[in-house]
Amino acid sequence: MTQQVIGYESLRPLLNPKSIAVLGASENKYKIGHLQIQALIDGKFQGDIIPIHPSASEIAGLKSYPTLADVPNEIDLVIFCVSYNQIKAGLVACAEKKVKSAIIFASGFSETGVEGQKLQQELAQYAQQHGIRLVGPNCVGLVNTSNGLIGTFSPAILTVPMNGKKGVGYVSQSGAFGVLTYMAAAQHGISFNYFISTGNEMDASFEDFVEYMVHDDETSIISGYLEGTKKPEKLKLLAKQALNKKKPILLMKTGRSNAGSRAAASHTGALAGSDKIYDAFFKQYGIIRVDDFEDIIAFSKLFNPEKLPTGKNTVIITSSGGRGINEADRCESYGLNIVELSKETQAEIRKTLPEYASVSNPIDLTAAASVTNPEFYLAPLKALVNDPDVDNIIFTDFPYVWDENSPMLQEFVSIAKSSNKLIGIFPFPLEGMTYPKATETLVANDVSVISGTLNPVRALAKLVQYSSYVQMNEQAYDVAADFGPASIEDLLKPGTTLSESEASQILDRYGIPTTKRYIAKESEEAVEMAKEIGFPVVLKIDSPHIPHKTEADGIRLNICTEEEVRKAFEEVMANAKEYNPAATLNGVSVQEMLPNGVEVIIGAHNDETFGPVIMAGLGGIFVEVFKDIAFKVAPLSSKDAFDLLEELQGKALLHGARGKAPVDKEAIIDVLLKVSNLMSDNKDTIKELDINPLIVYEKGIKAADAMIVVQEKVSEIQVIGG
Amino acid sequence: MTQQVIGYESLRPLLNPKSIAVLGASENKYKIGHLQIQALIDGKFQGDIIPIHPSASEIAGLKSYPTLADVPNEIDLVIFCVSYNQIKAGLVACAEKKVKSAIIFASGFSETGVEGQKLQQELAQYAQQHGIRLVGPNCVGLVNTSNGLIGTFSPAILTVPMNGKKGVGYVSQSGAFGVLTYMAAAQHGISFNYFISTGNEMDASFEDFVEYMVHDDETSIISGYLEGTKKPEKLKLLAKQALNKKKPILLMKTGRSNAGSRAAASHTGALAGSDKIYDAFFKQYGIIRVDDFEDIIAFSKLFNPEKLPTGKNTVIITSSGGRGINEADRCESYGLNIVELSKETQAEIRKTLPEYASVSNPIDLTAAASVTNPEFYLAPLKALVNDPDVDNIIFTDFPYVWDENSPMLQEFVSIAKSSNKLIGIFPFPLEGMTYPKATETLVANDVSVISGTLNPVRALAKLVQYSSYVQMNEQAYDVAADFGPASIEDLLKPGTTLSESEASQILDRYGIPTTKRYIAKESEEAVEMAKEIGFPVVLKIDSPHIPHKTEADGIRLNICTEEEVRKAFEEVMANAKEYNPAATLNGVSVQEMLPNGVEVIIGAHNDETFGPVIMAGLGGIFVEVFKDIAFKVAPLSSKDAFDLLEELQGKALLHGARGKAPVDKEAIIDVLLKVSNLMSDNKDTIKELDINPLIVYEKGIKAADAMIVVQEKVSEIQVIGG
Repeated sequence: MTQQVIGYESLRPLLNPKSIAVLGASENKYKIGHLQIQALIDGKFQGDIIPIHPSASEIAGLKSYPTLADVPNEIDLVIFCVSYNQIKAGLVACAEKKVKSAIIFASGFSETGVEGQKLQQELAQYAQQHGIRLVGPNCVGLVNTSNGLIGTFSPAILTVPMNGKKGVGYVSQSGAFGVLTYMAAAQHGISFNYFISTGNEMDASFEDFVEYMVHDDETSIISGYLEGTKKPEKLKLLAKQALNKKKPILLMKTGRSNAGSRAAASHTGALAGSDKIYDAFFKQYGIIRVDDFEDIIAFSKLFNPEKLPTGKNTVIITSSGGRGINEADRCESYGLNIVELSKETQAEIRKTLPEYASVSNPIDLTAAASVTNPEFYLAPLKALVNDPDVDNIIFTDFPYVWDENSPMLQEFVSIAKSSNKLIGIFPFPLEGMTYPKATETLVANDVSVISGTLNPVRALAKLVQYSSYVQMNEQAYDVAADFGPASIEDLLKPGTTLSESEASQILDRYGIPTTKRYIAKESEEAVEMAKEIGFPVVLKIDSPHIPHKTEADGIRLNICTEEEVRKAFEEVMANAKEYNPAATLNGVSVQEMLPNGVEVIIGAHNDETFGPVIMAGLGGIFVEVFKDIAFKVAPLSSKDAFDLLEELQGKALLHGARGKAPVDKEAIIDVLLKVSNLMSDNKDTIKELDINPLIVYEKGIKAADAMIVVQEKVSEIQVIGG
Repeated sequence: MTQQVIGYESLRPLLNPKSIAVLGASENKYKIGHLQIQALIDGKFQGDIIPIHPSASEIAGLKSYPTLADVPNEIDLVIFCVSYNQIKAGLVACAEKKVKSAIIFASGFSETGVEGQKLQQELAQYAQQHGIRLVGPNCVGLVNTSNGLIGTFSPAILTVPMNGKKGVGYVSQSGAFGVLTYMAAAQHGISFNYFISTGNEMDASFEDFVEYMVHDDETSIISGYLEGTKKPEKLKLLAKQALNKKKPILLMKTGRSNAGSRAAASHTGALAGSDKIYDAFFKQYGIIRVDDFEDIIAFSKLFNPEKLPTGKNTVIITSSGGRGINEADRCESYGLNIVELSKETQAEIRKTLPEYASVSNPIDLTAAASVTNPEFYLAPLKALVNDPDVDNIIFTDFPYVWDENSPMLQEFVSIAKSSNKLIGIFPFPLEGMTYPKATETLVANDVSVISGTLNPVRALAKLVQYSSYVQMNEQAYDVAADFGPASIEDLLKPGTTLSESEASQILDRYGIPTTKRYIAKESEEAVEMAKEIGFPVVLKIDSPHIPHKTEADGIRLNICTEEEVRKAFEEVMANAKEYNPAATLNGVSVQEMLPNGVEVIIGAHNDETFGPVIMAGLGGIFVEVFKDIAFKVAPLSSKDAFDLLEELQGKALLHGARGKAPVDKEAIIDVLLKVSNLMSDNKDTIKELDINPLIVYEKGIKAADAMIVVQEKVSEIQVIGG
């Protein structure tokens, strides 16, 4: 019962076995126990294939054995072609034979309810104890195209050609969608080197396979279909490692919409966090979120680690004005910049093109280029590759007639090859006619040729984004100072919403500036406190049971005299009692009245997937009406905190809109980092936190109100936080 | 020289000729004078084809004549396969022969500069005088698939099959993009019945062809590629007529981005208005703006005038959980609603599906449906067609094996046929395998089958939008009362920016509430006026040369005493003199100080394409930082005015956000309509107008500031406004 450390190396027998036994092998050509064996044969698996069958001596021409124990040699991988009630016995046999790994297709486990969950857990434990790595159950299996391992009965997989040249790995939490993506990619000339359907992930998880590919030299791009991660910390770490290796991770994460999330949560039982948080997480850790499977294919075709885009300035070259405009629109809609060419570059291009061609971007070679003057396609290239303001050059069409021997094509590719710019040909999505004859030569010389069907412009925008992640990763950033956890246990009452004064005390201990304030139990006490603070003051009811003080009419602002203090005290107490007679009233908080400034909101919550998540927004109307907020997963670096503010639509208000002076952004960033520390230190206890408003001045900042919700039971959260 | 009225009927000989002569006919198979004749033969043109050649007696097996004059019969259409310097002589011959129409491919006209423009204008006039309707020059020609008229030399057109069954017409301001779209549509089974490349539009324009199709019974959908309209009034009228006939107009308008607009403006010299105004115009008149050519194809496949979508509530049925979630995300991203199914409907569906299937939307039939249980595809349909909350039902996959004789397929189509719900099958974009075998039967029974390549979900969203246009069109709306133009000529000084008091007088005459105000020339005069108005007051410099009064420090707010009035008067005058010593100062405007309310901005400008355009927005920070504004083309209906406010992101502020009472929306609508009248009545003189801020209260409204810019020269604008 020793728990063993399982590294990604333990997945090698599963993905790269030397010998495979097929449990449930069958002579019936329509059963999966036969289809699976045939798939391994057809895939030209480079190792032993061993059918296990109680009586047959040979299946599909291969020597068969009655049981695993009868097999004379070692077995790396057992493929279970049996139904769910035979899995347990099979695993016992595997353990006895010291089999290293298994694929389990069968359904009937955690996806069916409590009984299935229990059975699955039991099997998972057993396998772990005996060092057997598993993929599944309830999955389509896996493929490794480099050694011909077709570990799946899906006949669809076999209909497409295999050549994992580009080294694109693919992991999917949906079997059917994964197979479709695998096939579509193959039809477009990208064969995944690994394809893995993870199913219920009873042992090896989505993240485990990503880890394997991060360390696998054959894989240069890691892609996947994700419904929800159960190991966000691992994914974080892997994202960093992959970024260091310039190995992009492209994930199609579904469940963007409410309906999608609803379905994703029930589908294969993945614990899907809110979509916005995923978005934030991906951005923060340099994972590229793709919108559809086309992005994976087009990105893979564009990607060249030695020639990442230098920026987003893009030039379009076309023989059709209409196509040029359309592609320009598309580029800008995805955030690329259709750069205005310098006079020098335009003049340079003009030397080679007639008057009727347009030399401004998009460059319109006119129909003459496609009919009589293919040399026009070459002419502007020379000027463009020398223009430092140009990052990417896109052709919407290309001379079909140039073959690899055409001198003009040879000149074209030699210019392309020696340039550091990204050059792509994105033909209109028509069957036939649109692909250049010399596509192979072009591709071999760093010119991508990608059908418009795949939305290559969107993929280019993602590649530019990836390139910026790589650049940022190469820069050094300040790590946020963490002064260690402050002691706040005495203030955290489990299962309650802390009163403003209690919450403010916690902020104080983390060094977040709050207002001067005292709790008054009686009216005269309030007057004394007001004098101590200095007029004008604010009076607010202080009660753990009245989180929405305005609703209870429990706030009085801008109180300037002792008389007003007395009146306000009585009113606020009376209103609170009427609002909630059962509420415990700590008293009335007497506070300094803060001068006007820019109102900001900083919030945090303990996300069920990602743990503490920090939110920033502009306060008041901006957050309520415009929902102008942004998220990052804690812990924040100072760059994360800076980016949080940059992502706000109304960030101009911080920079001094309408003639005002800019506010103290450093102070906001400081509070964000302190909130990040506070939430990270107390992730098992603090559920939610709101500082609203946080008032920012030209110099300085103050929390004018705060709320903290403490977890019900500490024991519960420890499970989720893991 | 009599100018004749040219109705759409005059285009009939061009689009539906009985006889066609080809000028510049050639025996050389590679010349367009030969290709064109061959195209007409191959297209099986149902009429006479008459080659014109100086010496040949026969070309491509057809009797040839030396000149048009030699042809014994009438000629409806002459196709000019000659270069630009021979066009004029050809037109003269056409006039003498009383030819009714012509196609001119040649380039070398307005697209090349001033000389070409002059020649083009001359030819256009000549043709008009002789009643010859023309398409081109600088175009690809036109096609009418119903009579085999391939009036183009483009070899690409001939490679695709022709069957204009769905009656989809297509007009393009880009030749090359038009041809590509024509081909792509044909590859996807939609052959346009008309294809027209409009070129330089020297005679027949984009709008003229739209008009022809609006009145053509063969055409049920009008689609096009538009760079810019030169006849917005005509397009307005046609849009209304088409909506009355339930004939959708789908336009792909390029130039969304700045770069796109830049190129569109130079391309074929179209006068492209700003993209946002086009957007507003399309929405206002029920024109569907499509994002790409795929939308035209998919929309055409979905469209059935007898069965328009009843709403946006959509249900997804899938055999792959992953696909279901992905399509749900896609639906919601385009504004469709993945409706939560009622308990009753879920229970109804559950009766027919096993426990492991998910009966909530998206409905997941699981892989069993595609492997062993195709009947699952039928089961939920019966419950869904009876649920009034369901408008659209989408299958992401379908049993491939059902052919038209399968009893289950027959039941499926009989349910579909008798339901008023839109039912579509949108297979994953893979070649082979994905299309149902019985596609033809399905389509014949109102079930659309559309490949995912065409983004059918986006097209469905557009169809739902179209359906809402039709529904709105069937409702009666108040026509905004127009009290006739007010007399304001005395106030409109050409070429100036009117001072606030002058602009406010104009608003007064149009019945728009403004502040009480007087112009004081001297300080004591200002004091008297302030007493008359009642304290507090506002003082503002009044000068036609100081439009930005804040910048000149020319405003003093909240003045409560006589002493303050005197001081403010002197300061404001002194500041103005310092700011602009050359400015004419009318004096200081003394105004009532308006109480706080919600600040709104209403603006208008005379757009070079669409004439007066009205803008509404939330004032202050909202317009400056969030650019929260919306546009409509004048004249506004009361519904337009209402919609303008509804389109604001921050409209909640008008409905009483943060505990405030809702403001007087009727009053804003009233001002919008009055501004619309003001701008429409004076479109030749008023260039721009700004009411900023317009302060709205719970009851009532007042313009707190106004600016009007008057046209330089009245004569100029008359040309553009036409």
